[in-house]
Amino acid sequence: MVTSEAGSGAGGTGAGLLADVGEDAVVATLLERFAALGPAAGEPDDVLVGPGDDAAVLRVRRGHAVVSTDLLVEDRHFRRDWCSATDVGHRAAAQNLSDINAMGGRAHSLTLGLALPSDLPLAWVREFADGFATEAARVGARVVGGDVTGGDQVVVAVTVLGTVAKAPVLRSGARPGDVVALCGRQGWAAGGLAVLGRGFRSPRVLVEAYRRPEPPYAAGPAAAEAGATALVDVSDGLLSDAGHVAQASGVRIDLRTADLEVAEPLHAVGSALGADPLRFVLTGGDDHPLLGTFPAGATLPEGWRAVGAVHELRVDDTSAVTVDGEVPEGDLGWRHF
Amino acid sequence: MVTSEAGSGAGGTGAGLLADVGEDAVVATLLERFAALGPAAGEPDDVLVGPGDDAAVLRVRRGHAVVSTDLLVEDRHFRRDWCSATDVGHRAAAQNLSDINAMGGRAHSLTLGLALPSDLPLAWVREFADGFATEAARVGARVVGGDVTGGDQVVVAVTVLGTVAKAPVLRSGARPGDVVALCGRQGWAAGGLAVLGRGFRSPRVLVEAYRRPEPPYAAGPAAAEAGATALVDVSDGLLSDAGHVAQASGVRIDLRTADLEVAEPLHAVGSALGADPLRFVLTGGDDHPLLGTFPAGATLPEGWRAVGAVHELRVDDTSAVTVDGEVPEGDLGWRHF
Repeated sequence: MVTSEAGSGAGGTGAGLLADVGEDAVVATLLERFAALGPAAGEPDDVLVGPGDDAAVLRVRRGHAVVSTDLLVEDRHFRRDWCSATDVGHRAAAQNLSDINAMGGRAHSLTLGLALPSDLPLAWVREFADGFATEAARVGARVVGGDVTGGDQVVVAVTVLGTVAKAPVLRSGARPGDVVALCGRQGWAAGGLAVLGRGFRSPRVLVEAYRRPEPPYAAGPAAAEAGATALVDVSDGLLSDAGHVAQASGVRIDLRTADLEVAEPLHAVGSALGADPLRFVLTGGDDHPLLGTFPAGATLPEGWRAVGAVHELRVDDTSAVTVDGEVPEGDLGWRHF
Repeated sequence: MVTSEAGSGAGGTGAGLLADVGEDAVVATLLERFAALGPAAGEPDDVLVGPGDDAAVLRVRRGHAVVSTDLLVEDRHFRRDWCSATDVGHRAAAQNLSDINAMGGRAHSLTLGLALPSDLPLAWVREFADGFATEAARVGARVVGGDVTGGDQVVVAVTVLGTVAKAPVLRSGARPGDVVALCGRQGWAAGGLAVLGRGFRSPRVLVEAYRRPEPPYAAGPAAAEAGATALVDVSDGLLSDAGHVAQASGVRIDLRTADLEVAEPLHAVGSALGADPLRFVLTGGDDHPLLGTFPAGATLPEGWRAVGAVHELRVDDTSAVTVDGEVPEGDLGWRHF
């Protein structure tokens, strides 16, 4: 499969291992791919100095900057035998871009830190860069800086910078009487992960959803425009992240199962694995839809659907999140340790 | 040593392992320490939303933002038996803050991503946070966001944001005729590392220099003010980083050994280990002094000393960096893979 002429640095087929090709080839491979990224259509180019100096330099305009950081760790957040390098690149960018979406903002810049085992093929780096760049291009974000180093496992550390048009939409603004709404796929990635965990590769649409989330990047700014009172990126699980909004806002959020969309393939997986498909929707992470709250009577932007309501949190409430009025049972989402 | 009452979350003595205390206790431990950080004296508080939402929100003023990312990986950049958690915290902050210094800028915000093994004691996290916060406080930088996750080894991913008063000082501005100058300790950390590598713990001043670099944070803005034409953070080694400036500027940099300060303890270590102490100064990393170029005749700011000169790069030059006019031999610095 791999010819002996391969591995000749950034221009080769990438069969060489990082230990052989060295850091310069890794950096060149990344920069080559990222150089093609530009600002979103109609946006000015605010990157004055990109990668290569001690720091990147951005032109900033008066206003609000939003910044967020996320890590992806091999064998925790992805397995190299379950996800291609391109998938991991997409995912690493998506989960960070989604955080800016969840502020009602638009991302413009990314930094990328990579810890890479020395026995990793350079081709993995190139494919990762492809996925990362393709995802960044979806919102017009640039890669302005980074760091590459060795490590025992792949760790991808991304920081994203963005702007909000007016005020950012926080988790803490939900008020009793607000409508709770969701935009984007939810539960698909968890279904795909369950399938992969049993050694299967289908339904393919769920496996693909796990490998490459498709956050609804236009939904955050649209929600902000429509008067959303709170927004959160659903990364840990619907119940878990609804709980983050409820706690930050001092309210109770009730989700109505009748209004939660359980995608057809999830029913199939549920039957095959003997699991309740609704469980994927309630507790699954990694899809990165947005959960928002809107004033009663607000017109929800396109793609959003009402899935619950915000209530006052009473002294005798034992949970800030309820499902059809009941306290949910069991584990609510992702545990990091 | 460790009592059974310990490990009771963020308020305990921290004897609990992360697997036992869980993610919330880790985050609480970090936030508790970082909450005390404020802006530098006389500076406005521009952090509108700190950690806890999907992203932090900063008030930005019209001008230039500088941003940089660095990773610290256990067993590559530090060993837990050679450096305390507090040391690692200091180092992780210092190496990033130094990048802003090297743009002639001032850092105001940091994000912190941590991959942590589940058998790490919570006390390690608390001590790390102490070091990180203490170093950040030296320049008035805040921790505005982060991410905590599991991992096989400790990985610290830091992104730093800052501002420059006027224009940033890049690596590419050195011109033939400029004076090359250095500010800060150089070679000390390499001496300390050499000592630790032989199983010794002294000279203590060098070991401490390795564990906790002391970048000259005021030197970058002062150099910018004095008209520096190029600046670089010396993290990989003096020859290596001088090479970065020379290559970016298209010049040759000549260093004069007679003007390079070889600290007394380095002579002692050189004698003991049979090494040339000058080698620590020329190739050692991790001290984070600044190397700068200034127009001939410029008054160097306090703490800077002239150590060389910038020359035209001629067609027959085989190296962009020379030492006393000669091409240096051997490995020039740090290899990442």
